[in-house]
Order: sequence, then C-alpha cells, then structure tokens
Amino acid sequence: MSIEAEREKAGFWFSEETGPDSSISLKLHSILFSGSSPYQSVSIIKTSFGRTLVTDGKTQSCENDEKIYHESLVLPPLLKHGSPKKIFIGGGGELATARECLRIPSVEKVVMVDIDEAVVKMCIEHLPEWGEECWSDPRLEIIYGDAYENFDKIEEDWDVIIMDISDPIEAGPGIKLYTKEFYDMAKNKLSPGGVFVTQSGCGAVNNWDDCWSSIHKTLEGVFETVVPYRSNIPSFACPWAFTMAFEGPLGDFKTGVGVDEMIERLGPVFKGKQKEYEYYDEETHRHMFSLEKQVRKGLKEEKRVITMDNPVFMF
Amino acid sequence: MSIEAEREKAGFWFSEETGPDSSISLKLHSILFSGSSPYQSVSIIKTSFGRTLVTDGKTQSCENDEKIYHESLVLPPLLKHGSPKKIFIGGGGELATARECLRIPSVEKVVMVDIDEAVVKMCIEHLPEWGEECWSDPRLEIIYGDAYENFDKIEEDWDVIIMDISDPIEAGPGIKLYTKEFYDMAKNKLSPGGVFVTQSGCGAVNNWDDCWSSIHKTLEGVFETVVPYRSNIPSFACPWAFTMAFEGPLGDFKTGVGVDEMIERLGPVFKGKQKEYEYYDEETHRHMFSLEKQVRKGLKEEKRVITMDNPVFMF
Amino acid sequence: MSIEAEREKAGFWFSEETGPDSSISLKLHSILFSGSSPYQSVSIIKTSFGRTLVTDGKTQSCENDEKIYHESLVLPPLLKHGSPKKIFIGGGGELATARECLRIPSVEKVVMVDIDEAVVKMCIEHLPEWGEECWSDPRLEIIYGDAYENFDKIEEDWDVIIMDISDPIEAGPGIKLYTKEFYDMAKNKLSPGGVFVTQSGCGAVNNWDDCWSSIHKTLEGVFETVVPYRSNIPSFACPWAFTMAFEGPLGDFKTGVGVDEMIERLGPVFKGKQKEYEYYDEETHRHMFSLEKQVRKGLKEEKRVITMDNPVFMF
Amino acid sequence: MSIEAEREKAGFWFSEETGPDSSISLKLHSILFSGSSPYQSVSIIKTSFGRTLVTDGKTQSCENDEKIYHESLVLPPLLKHGSPKKIFIGGGGELATARECLRIPSVEKVVMVDIDEAVVKMCIEHLPEWGEECWSDPRLEIIYGDAYENFDKIEEDWDVIIMDISDPIEAGPGIKLYTKEFYDMAKNKLSPGGVFVTQSGCGAVNNWDDCWSSIHKTLEGVFETVVPYRSNIPSFACPWAFTMAFEGPLGDFKTGVGVDEMIERLGPVFKGKQKEYEYYDEETHRHMFSLEKQVRKGLKEEKRVITMDNPVFMF
Repeated sequence: MSIEAEREKAGFWFSEETGPDSSISLKLHSILFSGSSPYQSVSIIKTSFGRTLVTDGKTQSCENDEKIYHESLVLPPLLKHGSPKKIFIGGGGELATARECLRIPSVEKVVMVDIDEAVVKMCIEHLPEWGEECWSDPRLEIIYGDAYENFDKIEEDWDVIIMDISDPIEAGPGIKLYTKEFYDMAKNKLSPGGVFVTQSGCGAVNNWDDCWSSIHKTLEGVFETVVPYRSNIPSFACPWAFTMAFEGPLGDFKTGVGVDEMIERLGPVFKGKQKEYEYYDEETHRHMFSLEKQVRKGLKEEKRVITMDNPVFMF
Repeated sequence: MSIEAEREKAGFWFSEETGPDSSISLKLHSILFSGSSPYQSVSIIKTSFGRTLVTDGKTQSCENDEKIYHESLVLPPLLKHGSPKKIFIGGGGELATARECLRIPSVEKVVMVDIDEAVVKMCIEHLPEWGEECWSDPRLEIIYGDAYENFDKIEEDWDVIIMDISDPIEAGPGIKLYTKEFYDMAKNKLSPGGVFVTQSGCGAVNNWDDCWSSIHKTLEGVFETVVPYRSNIPSFACPWAFTMAFEGPLGDFKTGVGVDEMIERLGPVFKGKQKEYEYYDEETHRHMFSLEKQVRKGLKEEKRVITMDNPVFMF
Repeated sequence: MSIEAEREKAGFWFSEETGPDSSISLKLHSILFSGSSPYQSVSIIKTSFGRTLVTDGKTQSCENDEKIYHESLVLPPLLKHGSPKKIFIGGGGELATARECLRIPSVEKVVMVDIDEAVVKMCIEHLPEWGEECWSDPRLEIIYGDAYENFDKIEEDWDVIIMDISDPIEAGPGIKLYTKEFYDMAKNKLSPGGVFVTQSGCGAVNNWDDCWSSIHKTLEGVFETVVPYRSNIPSFACPWAFTMAFEGPLGDFKTGVGVDEMIERLGPVFKGKQKEYEYYDEETHRHMFSLEKQVRKGLKEEKRVITMDNPVFMF
Repeated sequence: MSIEAEREKAGFWFSEETGPDSSISLKLHSILFSGSSPYQSVSIIKTSFGRTLVTDGKTQSCENDEKIYHESLVLPPLLKHGSPKKIFIGGGGELATARECLRIPSVEKVVMVDIDEAVVKMCIEHLPEWGEECWSDPRLEIIYGDAYENFDKIEEDWDVIIMDISDPIEAGPGIKLYTKEFYDMAKNKLSPGGVFVTQSGCGAVNNWDDCWSSIHKTLEGVFETVVPYRSNIPSFACPWAFTMAFEGPLGDFKTGVGVDEMIERLGPVFKGKQKEYEYYDEETHRHMFSLEKQVRKGLKEEKRVITMDNPVFMF
C-alpha cells in the first residue's frame, strides 16, 4: 500500500486559528509526532508545505519555506554588522538560526538558549536538514533554560543578538523577552557596532498592530535606529515582521544598494546541494525593507511601550 | 513527552462528509496508518471514538461502538434461524462479523470473502481486538476476492448469509451485491429456514431513501418476509439500517418477546473480559425493530428496485 | 437572479460544536436574522433542514423535524394523564409546545413562561408555522419572565408540567429548572394523576451522561415513577432524551400496547394540511421507550443528584 | 436586539478553498445577498474584512482592502503612461477600477466591458462606496457583454488597457482574455506609449506558477517590456500578482525613484473623506516591484505560452 497516496479522500486536516475571526486549514498528510513538553504542545506533521513543526497549535517552521524565515531573521543584522564574531540566539529550537549564523566564517561563537529541550530533540530527529550542518560545530553552545535569565548571567559582549522566540502570548515563556527592560539589557550587552534583531509576528496591513508596532515603539525608546522589515512566508499565512535595532545612523541600508557585494564579503559557506541563499539578494532585500504606506503610518503612530508591568499580547 | 496529551491545542481534525450539505469533524488524536490498497484508501486513526478504520474517507468501525454494529448485523439472523451451522459473510474485513458468528457453538463453518486483503491485514495489525478471538479458529475460511463471483462459485447451502460490505457508491466494488440478481442467487443458496441480512446504510427520517428503502423494496421482490431494523451507532452520525429477509412468516419477532431466552439458547461464548453482549437484549431488540411512522411509510411506498441495469447510489 | 441557487459554490457554513472533540457543519443557505437578546444570541437561518432557530450557537428547532421533538415532548405526558385540563410550559419560545398542547380538546388552560420575548417574536415572524395555530387561542397565556419564579408564584394545580428549556449550561438562565429543589416544587403543584416531563439533552450510548442520567437520578429522588425515553431528531445530531415522572405505577406504558387507542381518545385536532401526527403512533412509542442495554445500565447506576448547590453542566 | 452582536457564538463561516490542499475560513457576520447570474454565483457578505463580493465561492473585493487591489491594478500603467486619455477596462464589475481611472483629470473616456450585469447592479446596491464617485461620470461607458468580442469590435486606440477579470478557471468566461491571441490584439489597439496591464492571480513563492508565470511568458512573446509586480491583499490570502506590458524600455521604473512626483503630475482628484491614495506611494511602489529571488527565477524560467488551443488553468 502506498503511504500517503490517498490523502485527498482521507479527510485529515490541520486547522490553525489566524485571528479571532479566521482560520486556515491544510490537508494533513501524516502526524510524525504529537506530544507535549513541560512548556508547550509539540507536533511534527506533514502537509503540502512539507514536514512542519507545530507548537501550541501554531506553525513554527516548514520544510518548504523555513529558509525564507531564517535568512530573513539572520542576514540583515549580520550584513549590517559586517564581520560578526559572537552571536547570542534567544530561542531558535529548530537550530536553523544557528545554522545561518555558523555559515559565516567570521563567526567564532554562537550561544543559543532555548527553554524547551524536547523541541530541539524532536527537530534533530524529524527535521534533520534544519540544523544538521551545525550540530557538531564546536563554535555552537546550546543552553537549555530561560533565555532572559541566561542572557543576564552570561558575561559577554555580543556582536549580534537574535531573538527567535515564540510570539508574545499570555503566560508564554517568552513574554519578558519583548519588554523595554530586556531591550535595555540587550543594548548594554552589544559590542560597539552590535546589532539586535527580533522576530515580530504578523506584519500585514490588517494586523501590524498585533504586536509588531508595539515592539517597534518599545525598541525606539532604547536604540538610536530601529528598522522594521518583513518577508512573505506562505506557511505563516501573513507577511511576517522582523525588527532590527542598533546605535548609529541607518545610512542607505533600506534601498538594498550594495547588498549583493555585502553578502559576498560575509562569505557564507554552503554545504550539500545548496550553493547560495535561496531567498536573499539585493532585490529581495529591497522588497523586505520597503513597507506599504499604511504599515509605515501605523508603526509611526503607535504609542504602546511594552514593559514588564504592561506586556503586549497578540492573538 | 506525553504522547497525545495536548491534542486540543494541536488542531488536527478528521472531517467526513455525511451528505451533500453536511459534514462532521472529529479531533484527530493520531494517524496510525494511512495508505491505499488497489481498491480504496485505507487509514487507521484515533479519535474520541477510539481507534477507527476509515476507507475512502468514510468511518467503517470504531473501537468504542463497533460492537453495536456487529451485534446488530449478526444476532438477528442467527436468532431467527435458531441453530445456524454454515454462514457466508460478504465483506467483513475487520473480522468482527466473523467473531460474532464464531461465538455461537452450533456454527461449524464460516466462509468470509473480502476483496481487500490490505484492510484485513491492517485490522489484524492495528485493531486486533476486533477479530483476534477468531483468527485461528479452524471453522473460519477467508477468501480474498470478489464476493459476488466467489459466492456464485461456492457450492454450499448456507444457513445464514451476511452482507457486511461498503455502501453502494458509484463504481465501488460492492455495487452488484445490492441488486435483485444477487438477492435471487442468495435466496437459492439458503438452506431451508435460512436467513439473509445486509447492512443497509443510513436510516434516519431524513435519509432512509439514500439506499435503504430501495434495498428493502428489492428484497421484497425476492423474499416472502423482509424485516427492516436499525441501531444508533454514534460514530456513524446517523441511525444505521439493516435488512433481514427469509421465506416464511415473521411471527412476533419484532416485539422482542422471548429474545433473552433465544439468546440463551444460541449460547454465545465470550472470552477475555467480555461476559455478555454489550448491546443486545430483549429491550434493545424491541428498540431496533420498532421504526418511526415516517420511516415505515417511506419504506412501504418506495418503488425503486435495484438491478444490475439500474443500480442505486447513496451519497 | 435566483436566490439560494448556487449555495454549493458559495462556501457558507453553520458549524455547531457537538462536544469537546466534535462538530457538525451544515451548508448555510441564508441568514434570515442574526442578533442577540439580553439572554442569548439568536439567529434564524436556513439549511438543508429548512428554517432553523439557533440560540447561543446551538440548533433549537428545524422546519424539517421540529414535529418529532414537539410530539415527543408533549404526547407522552398527555397520553399518560388521559384528559389534561391545565398545562404549565416552562420555556417553549417557538410556541410549538403550546400548539401540541392546545391541539387537545380537553385542555382548558396553558400557561407558558419564557424568559426571552425576543425569541418568541422572532419565531412568530420567521417561523410562523411553528405556532400560528395557537397564537390567538384564548386558552393560551404567555408570560415573559423567569420560569422558576413565575412557576412558584402562580397558585394552580397543573395536570401536566412540561419543561421545554435550554440545556443546563453554565450561567444559563435555565439551570435552576433542573434541580431537585425545582422538581420538589413541581411535584407539589401537580394535581392528582399529574405528569411532569422535561427535555433532557443528548441520549446516545456515548453521551447519556452529559446531563440525562443526572436528571433521571434527581427525579428518582422526588417522584415514585420516572420514565426515560428518546427520539431521533436528525438536526440535533444525537438521539434526544426526555424524562417523564409521576406518582403511581408505570403499568405497561413502555410497551406501547394501546397507544393508538389512547391517542384517539385524546382526540387531537389538526388544522391545515396536517391530518394526523407526523411521528407518533404505537410503534414509534415502542421505539422511543425501549432503550439500549448500555443506556439503561448507565441511567440505573448514576449517582449524581442535581441541587442548587451542586448543578450539572453539559457541554 | 443588536444585529451581528453575537456572531462569535453563532458559528457561521465562509470557507474558501485556496488550493487543492488548503482553505481559509472567515466568520460570517451576515449574508446581504446570495444568488446566481447566468454566468456565476454571486454573494455579498460581511466578514471581519467588511462587506465582500464573492463570485463562484471566491473573494473578489473587500471593503477593508479593495483600495490596495485597485490602486495596484490601475496606478502603475497610468504612471508609466503619464497622461492617459482613453482607457479600456475588461471586467471591472465592482466599478472601483473605473473609479481609479476617472480620478485622473487627463482621462477623457473609459469604456468598461463586463459580461455580468447582475454583479454590477449588486455592487451598486450593496457596495456603493466602491464606485459611486463615477456612476454618473459622463466619461464612463459601460457595456454588458463579452470583453473579447467587444474589444475586437470597438475601433479605438487605447492609452491604457486594464484587464480586471476573474482568474482563468476552466470554462470561465474570461479564459480567452489570457491568451497570446488576445494580447496580440491588445498590442495592436494601444496608442504609441500605451500600456497594458492584467491582474495575474496568486504570486507567492509557492504559487507563482498557478497562472502568473504563464501570463508573464505569454506577454513576453508579444510586448518588448513586461513588468511583473505584486501587492499583499490580506483578504486574497496570498500576495497578488499583476503584469504590465508595453513597447519601449523599462527605464528605472522598478526602483520607484520619482514616483511621488509622477503621482503629483497625474493629479488624482479625491472626493469625500479620502484625501490621498491609501496604499500607493514611492516606497510602496518599490515594495511592489521588487520580487524575491525564487519568484524572479520562476518567472524567468517559465516555458508555457497560453494560446486559444493551449489555455492555462489555475486552481
């Protein structure tokens, strides 16, 4: 019998709420794993997007488009910095964020702190391509624990700090990693020329205010320059937002002029069949850093600042 | 990590169309197997109904209520006959119909013909309780092949003929097993006092005419007495119909008077934890054989006769 | 343009949760009204079941099968009593329960107390066939208010008390109408030979314990005889339970012998095209009052008693 | 009773298939109209996207984001041309495409040919804001009929030709409007400096090959310059593609430099509360005309050419 051959008739679906008034449903080809860790429910499934990590019912990473997410999260701060040596990753359980960092020869050390060891183990078992390039890289140190606490504890100046954590949902473990208090600490732990970046949730014209605009406003109270950007990741069901922040001027980073040369200077090393970035180049960069009028207006006019006492929650 | 612990958050569903205008959705706890045989798609899943066999997207048998279906299909003809020796089963892939037949000491021989060996193998692997009591029973012979053809070929007088086949859907393998031609042949192969029974699809006040009334009308053209009955099987999403037919008068079989004694005389043997029929007794029998006014009227007034040239199709 | 012609392509659905793990979806042909009263959300929609009253997202009554529900609720206590004069209805907003009572010539007075005037108005406007026979019947008095309070206040001995109220869901207005305290009061307000009946929620082999068995157990603590019964109402998605209670012995009421004559003696008057009960007769009665082995066992072994301090909640 | 107040409990949904393996569901607040014309099913509904036109089960235009679609479709060819006088619109039933054309003072004549008068009437009745600015504009002529046939028949040189038609689905009326034959005819009917544009379906990294790449390849066989672009329209559930084509070089149109001045020169006139384009400006333009690496590669490598004999069908 051919496995997965007749899924059309079988009627299995993965449904994900995308807001209080909407949901998407994907045909479910198989459930490779479904269980729960002390922190969240964890499943590895297969849909038309390929193998997919799902935590607490929300798509985290898909075989078919994870490179878009991870290149979008990692490359901008690395390009901005130019020659990063030490990188801190908050979250990053699929190990693909570490993979993109360790692809760069100048990088000497990557410390990744993820609270959920079970997710990392499941990804290693079921989604090996995500991170296998870097599992045994001696430059990588993985700490299982609270990212806030460990970040505070480690005495280090970071060239790049990458927050690859779940969206800020109520009671979720990541909530304090989106606060002014954490951003102040992050700024203090950046080396000169250092760059901070965080994934920032939904970024469409109808949901930039879920959490993105508040993250943006909060970072504006801490860093001299804050740069919002975005990529279309089909499996995420809406354009996805990121926010980069650093001291010093923006320059002409947004227009993308010179990005292809900057990538070449970073000198990423590809293994296996991959020969170059799947997604990122100068025109992609221009697309990512150019936002629609309504979104720019929305980010500009936001007044909410996220603090420990006044957190923000997206759907 | 506790498997299946957090299924509520995971958002996996099994959706089954129950008509052109309706469907039911069940939370999908796991997919134990999903593939396809030469005849149909076959899945074994787990929902709140327990482990479930699904073929071509339709629920066939659930851990939690399969006994209702199989006791309903098998007991009435056996009770009517009184001391059956030779039984023919058309279909019956889950082996639970054979199990219910072989539970009766008078039974000397059960021949089961199912077209789909893959279904039988999957049920043995994933749903062992369905049939393990009878796998090695020397009285059981399983033939993998076309039930019509094999039925025709086997020279035998049967005390009971049980049709446990898929609903008559277009191009489905079972379609000719619902025709007057087949019923004529069945009548000729019954021993004196023999009883024929067939599962007959949906039986609610709003869908008795899917195929049940046509089966009923067709059998009325062949047998002296035709007895429609029905059981509520929650996982089937509507009251389920069966039709029994034989030569000779009905007597007071419908009222259920004396059924408990008749069961005792049959002398079913139970193994393991089961000590008695889960579903069947005199009052249950009375419930099954008493039909609502609208349904009786509908069955009575049906004019369609199913023949090879004029088959009936349910949704 | 032909209204409702192309609903298949339109993709509109009415989805109703039928448990924590299941839901049904019906194609939605149109929304005739959708709003909310002070007590609940109220919609009148059209599906393949015809026009339908939906409150708080739950199907209450459908054009195509409301007669099954209302004949099942009203006829058993009226048949048991024999010549009812005074009837109290708790709830009954669609007015079809009153219609079935007022169809009986012996009935002199029906008092109906429903908390939600908006529902009654909407039903009169959009579902006129439900109750138009009785709107102007001088024997009917409608009180808009709390059924418990009004029941307590009205000084009357009732021949029949009919509870046609929403299921006991948390904080719902009807919750105290399912308690031992209310049943004690009801018993005291019945005339000699009086009969009490209440709708009792889901009644399938897999959900008789939602609330039915507790209602049954609670009534057993109050009345000498308690009779559970059930009807299949397709739009309710599971067999529906009712519970009748009275002083004195049961007799052979369950077998249905003589029910056709009892109906004739009640002498129901039909108007318009309807010439007789659509659903109810002796064989239907036998079906309704015969319950499966598992359900009988479940009702018998239930220990929960519903009191004001210890209410029961179904899904 | 407050209309639409309790929709959350009501359980009404609009589900739209977005591919063979996926669908989106939106809470359905109300159905303002549902019927069918000779050409398609037509509904006007209300969801969280506001009032919405749905034809054949597919979202066409939503109150909350129709401006993104219509500004994206109309402005690029008008900006490229600079001072358009005569514009042909194929399709355009909601009248918002005409509205955006007639906003420009240089425009002297707009001829719109839509096959479905019923859609236009429904939009005028239920979605008046879409087009009321232009209903009585003497520069607008609406012809109800086949766009191909009428386009062929009208003797005119057009400055801009705008194809605002349904996606090319099998047997749909618009299929021949996506062929090389039609594009050849369009080129011949453009005045010098004229610009052609067509909506082009889904444009994400995982579905640019539904029809966009074929439209692009086909236009490349006809016009000297072909410019693909895209906008994120939330209610369309994927980034939406457009394709512009003309004779002569592209220049630096893609970078968006100078677009704000070009808009000012066009001199759009806004009425009512609207004071400027909601969506379009230089940075938005840069976003629209910068495509991701994978998409550019996909468009470049496409080989399919759409002809009358070899049409393309998207899901």
